[in-house]
Amino acid sequence: MEKRTSADLDFVFFPRNVAVIGASPTEFYTIALLLSKMNPNLYLVNPNYKELHGRKCYASVLDIEGPVDYVIFDLPTRMVTKVARECVQKGVKVIHSFSSGFSETGLQEGIDLEKELVSIIKGKVRMIGPNCMGVYCPKSGLSFNPGATNIEGNIGVIAQSGTFAQTFVNSGKTRNVRISKLVSYGNAVDLNCPDFLEYMADDPDTRVIAIYIEGILDGRRLMSALQYAAARKPVIVLKGGVTEQGGRIASSHTASLAGSGRTWSTMLRQAGVVQVDDIEDLLDAAIALSQSAPPSGNGVAIITYSGGFSVVQSDMCIKAGLDIPKLSPPAIEELRRFVPVTGTMIGNPLDAWQVYYNIKENEPGMDDVFRIISGEKDIHSVIFQLDIIRFMLPRWGADFEKNFPLIVDRIMKGLSYARDRGKMAVVSNFLDPYTENEKERHFNLQFKKRCEAEGFPIYGLLAAAVNAVATAYRYTGLKKH
Amino acid sequence: MEKRTSADLDFVFFPRNVAVIGASPTEFYTIALLLSKMNPNLYLVNPNYKELHGRKCYASVLDIEGPVDYVIFDLPTRMVTKVARECVQKGVKVIHSFSSGFSETGLQEGIDLEKELVSIIKGKVRMIGPNCMGVYCPKSGLSFNPGATNIEGNIGVIAQSGTFAQTFVNSGKTRNVRISKLVSYGNAVDLNCPDFLEYMADDPDTRVIAIYIEGILDGRRLMSALQYAAARKPVIVLKGGVTEQGGRIASSHTASLAGSGRTWSTMLRQAGVVQVDDIEDLLDAAIALSQSAPPSGNGVAIITYSGGFSVVQSDMCIKAGLDIPKLSPPAIEELRRFVPVTGTMIGNPLDAWQVYYNIKENEPGMDDVFRIISGEKDIHSVIFQLDIIRFMLPRWGADFEKNFPLIVDRIMKGLSYARDRGKMAVVSNFLDPYTENEKERHFNLQFKKRCEAEGFPIYGLLAAAVNAVATAYRYTGLKKH
Repeated sequence: MEKRTSADLDFVFFPRNVAVIGASPTEFYTIALLLSKMNPNLYLVNPNYKELHGRKCYASVLDIEGPVDYVIFDLPTRMVTKVARECVQKGVKVIHSFSSGFSETGLQEGIDLEKELVSIIKGKVRMIGPNCMGVYCPKSGLSFNPGATNIEGNIGVIAQSGTFAQTFVNSGKTRNVRISKLVSYGNAVDLNCPDFLEYMADDPDTRVIAIYIEGILDGRRLMSALQYAAARKPVIVLKGGVTEQGGRIASSHTASLAGSGRTWSTMLRQAGVVQVDDIEDLLDAAIALSQSAPPSGNGVAIITYSGGFSVVQSDMCIKAGLDIPKLSPPAIEELRRFVPVTGTMIGNPLDAWQVYYNIKENEPGMDDVFRIISGEKDIHSVIFQLDIIRFMLPRWGADFEKNFPLIVDRIMKGLSYARDRGKMAVVSNFLDPYTENEKERHFNLQFKKRCEAEGFPIYGLLAAAVNAVATAYRYTGLKKH
Repeated sequence: MEKRTSADLDFVFFPRNVAVIGASPTEFYTIALLLSKMNPNLYLVNPNYKELHGRKCYASVLDIEGPVDYVIFDLPTRMVTKVARECVQKGVKVIHSFSSGFSETGLQEGIDLEKELVSIIKGKVRMIGPNCMGVYCPKSGLSFNPGATNIEGNIGVIAQSGTFAQTFVNSGKTRNVRISKLVSYGNAVDLNCPDFLEYMADDPDTRVIAIYIEGILDGRRLMSALQYAAARKPVIVLKGGVTEQGGRIASSHTASLAGSGRTWSTMLRQAGVVQVDDIEDLLDAAIALSQSAPPSGNGVAIITYSGGFSVVQSDMCIKAGLDIPKLSPPAIEELRRFVPVTGTMIGNPLDAWQVYYNIKENEPGMDDVFRIISGEKDIHSVIFQLDIIRFMLPRWGADFEKNFPLIVDRIMKGLSYARDRGKMAVVSNFLDPYTENEKERHFNLQFKKRCEAEGFPIYGLLAAAVNAVATAYRYTGLKKH
């Protein structure tokens, strides 16, 4: 298939330089860009300052000596049209307007102002927004969040909501959400979801695309872009406003036509795109697919330490369209050699809590559990439940700090076994956000970092791990049809 | 209706004294009971010690001078029948066997041993288990968890899984799960779910009952007990093994007949009991109902700081059977007086992020938002989303520590308005468990404690808050029919 990328979108994600209009000592685009690799190519514009953050501050974009590729508006609404005209005059390539107060207010004044803005920019300069966060691209240094990581990732994010864009970026540091390119596009008077989608579909740096969308005027164009993208890589969509009341609310949020939830579900399924229900699910699935290929089938192995969790996890998986295949007799036999009979369940799920404590070199342990289970042909992913550090601490007592790294090594070896056999291996490790046990917290975080460093998705809730695998598998299932 | 409580169950929750057979320096029942108010009435039994934890250790229960009400077995399986015979001889009232290795193993040896155990105890001593954690009752001091809180609460918990029992008890400190009585009953060779259920139904200390059940032999008895309890107080049930494969796994976990998921759902609904899908939902609903009456109707007001979350929360509520009624024109008009038009949504949901920052005495703020919304007759609960401490920190900078208590005061005043008008008021305040921002963490925890101290349920995820209200409302709905 031919590439669809419009060349001018390169300037959206990789401008040679950026000007912030409305820069100030505390203005956050300015601070975020100063902290990024865009720093040397940043111009600050505000008629109220001669100097800002130790560099020259321009009164107008027209005063900047050389050409300007990308301009950010962080201005009062009433100034937007004037400044947009100056950008057109300057020959700017892309404007992003964080400034809001247009059609999304539902007021005639805002609607009229938006029409005027459109007439100024149409055909002369590309625009992102108004009423949105804009672009985050660690590779070029574009950012709106001073606390964002600068690490380059492979998740492409397209978000109609600024808060959801922020949620993705904020999760970069703490949940290992590694973003290639993100755009929050708001009212979309010019560039819209399909433009970004096609660009990310062709982007070699993007492995999975996560979308939050509330509505769009041109459904046909979106459908075509979704099909194009989903044929190339997993696309996960959270459609806001799928219920009638949610739809009404969406239209007052981003002035977009939400459409019926059923129509959207059908369209998304036909496009080969996976739909999810919650921002958490969108994040969790994106994390899994950024680190692992989608599972080739729906067979899941559950490795846990609890009978109750065995049962409930199995229910969760089945309800989510996954399967819990029985293990083969040879696998069961091999497990029986070292998994004690009392207080366990030998099979799938495997509840072998005692084995979590096996650290002696000469005794079989968690790595063997993974090795045996990963060898099963009907198993396509493994969900491993750790969250027993709080039990290990009292049980191992003074030996904990000596023993824990040994068990982590065996788990990592085990997870690698699974990956080597083409299985998707994810970890659920609930860390109570409110724990006052600092030691438990420390070692949980250490374990999490180790998983992330070795490229295994790790989740704070069982349901998150199950949903991530299920969502990833739904992409596989859609591709098959 | 007549009380059904069997008098002898008082000895289960309020024994005058307890003996632990298998006590040792590290054995956890011993440690938990030493730390509880049961301490003065505790006997330790183990033939291998003369003294333990600074007190006399008996070789056998028969050596204890006075009568013994309650005995805990933490012993190798092979010793259980011998020691059970001694307890019968001694005239013990209740035995709880943590020891496992019986029918749940699926092995003939274990099944035979369980039969022998039953023949020893039947009609002579009541038994909890085997293969379970037993009882936690802060009022009497019974406990199995050395880290448990001693605070007396009003949630009754009945759990067929030991891990789930632990999850409830562990959540006591960090999620404000306040338990009146909890029992994990495992193989249930004598006392079973209906016995505990009827007791808790009549228990004045118990306001809401949370149940995890995998299966039962006598469905008619359970149905009768569920109806009896649900007529008196909210009963929330997580049925493990509702899928065919989950059911197969449940039967190998607790040797119980899981039954078809559909049959259970019908039975639970007919009994007036609310069914949930996940242990997290069970906890979250129990927390809400322990602190608040169920909402009298399905109308929810959403107070948030984000358009995207407005839309997605509305969808979540509608899908969960709740409603998002429009506000009355006078309420909208009053809100319009102080909620800025730009970047907000004035209505229900209310996205008024700027008002979160209003702290001056002479300016309307969050308390007014709550006051206005709580006055609406179609609103029966309020879901308030905070989780903006991470945005407040950079925005308020050095003033944060001065400003934050002022905004918290206004929020607490607002939540109280809602409660005074008979609304269920819950808070969602996501605290990223993995945040490395210690200040954010500190103030999030401080806010959480304040909510808890004033009796408002607070949740770490939006979905948790929505599900808790929806589950509570489902009880109201079932009662109406």
